[in-house]
Amino acid sequence: MPSTSAGGRPGSSAVLSFHAAGALTSFTWLATDASRAPDLAAREVISRAAAAQMTYYDDVVEMLAGRVEAPHSLIDPYLLLLEEVAARTVPADWGERLLRTTVMGGMVRDLDAVLAQLLAPADRERARATRHDPGKMLAGLLTPALAADDRLRARLSLWGRRLAGEALGMLPPVVAALVAAAGQEGGENRAEAAAALHTPAMAAMSQGHAERMAALGLAA
Amino acid sequence: MPSTSAGGRPGSSAVLSFHAAGALTSFTWLATDASRAPDLAAREVISRAAAAQMTYYDDVVEMLAGRVEAPHSLIDPYLLLLEEVAARTVPADWGERLLRTTVMGGMVRDLDAVLAQLLAPADRERARATRHDPGKMLAGLLTPALAADDRLRARLSLWGRRLAGEALGMLPPVVAALVAAAGQEGGENRAEAAAALHTPAMAAMSQGHAERMAALGLAA
Repeated sequence: MPSTSAGGRPGSSAVLSFHAAGALTSFTWLATDASRAPDLAAREVISRAAAAQMTYYDDVVEMLAGRVEAPHSLIDPYLLLLEEVAARTVPADWGERLLRTTVMGGMVRDLDAVLAQLLAPADRERARATRHDPGKMLAGLLTPALAADDRLRARLSLWGRRLAGEALGMLPPVVAALVAAAGQEGGENRAEAAAALHTPAMAAMSQGHAERMAALGLAA
Repeated sequence: MPSTSAGGRPGSSAVLSFHAAGALTSFTWLATDASRAPDLAAREVISRAAAAQMTYYDDVVEMLAGRVEAPHSLIDPYLLLLEEVAARTVPADWGERLLRTTVMGGMVRDLDAVLAQLLAPADRERARATRHDPGKMLAGLLTPALAADDRLRARLSLWGRRLAGEALGMLPPVVAALVAAAGQEGGENRAEAAAALHTPAMAAMSQGHAERMAALGLAA
């Protein structure tokens, strides 16, 4: 993946690019969910959450544009990775759909938070300021149906496990890209710092996933 | 369609409900277009335009919530109408898709502007302030492909005519709903005022359509 050291800490453009790809993918997932919503109340809150992702996207792209020539070429590979994961996890119904956006979005945000350790503190703070987590809203839509339906809970527990597996599968290529970018810009020490994020990232994603599933009353 | 006279001019809740339905439908169309965009540059600008529709939606829903008990029940019938039109005009490719969003969105906004005559001036001004027209952005994406391709221009000219016909078909039920709401709240004079908008609305939509098609180099 292409990179540059025009500004910020070595590797920071790769991190911001992943943030941007995650935000734009969340926008697309939420907007698609909204278009399939069973009623206007759900359609409205999900559409709003989608729009909020664009605020975060615009913010990280602005940060990125300040330090690289062609931000899009840095974002593209991560978008592709997320699209491949989405293509492998096509939901069969509304429950599977909402759970996919919950699980995938949640794990991408867990990863965002760990990768952000490579950013300078001011950048990290700025990126965190507009990041918007639709998790609680989605859980609010999912739980009423889940509480009343044992079979649905069993099916979605299984589906959640599959989604988590796919999301964890993104980690090696994302970390590899980050290691390459950080090493290219900042040498061996920075590459090691990036590689060292693999284990905490996996822990944060697994832990976050278990908590989100538990909050929904699902087995992780 | 249900209505109420809890605030504003008679018929104004029906107008604001149509505004809201148009905005939410534009959001959905643009977000779907964005998800099919051939590159990140297009995906980004269309996603931003989608998010901007939610600002307008939130604004008119807030106005509506201040005067009726159950805004969603007023918005629903217009959403259904717009969804029926969308279902009858499924685009076969990217060009047809962008032209649908351009033509339909443009004509819905033309209709918005005429119906807004039933609002009190302050309401009309407030609704206009956040209304966002993605027409120029969409035209910027469409024209490069059109300029180089006579056959595409011919095909999309035909498609544009069909889209305009479907959009004009919304006018009778929308005006009928407005006449019913205005009459119920404000008596015969208000019902007549609403009915009198049919002809100028048709003129505005046809004229706006012709101008948008001409700007794209397409035959209306």
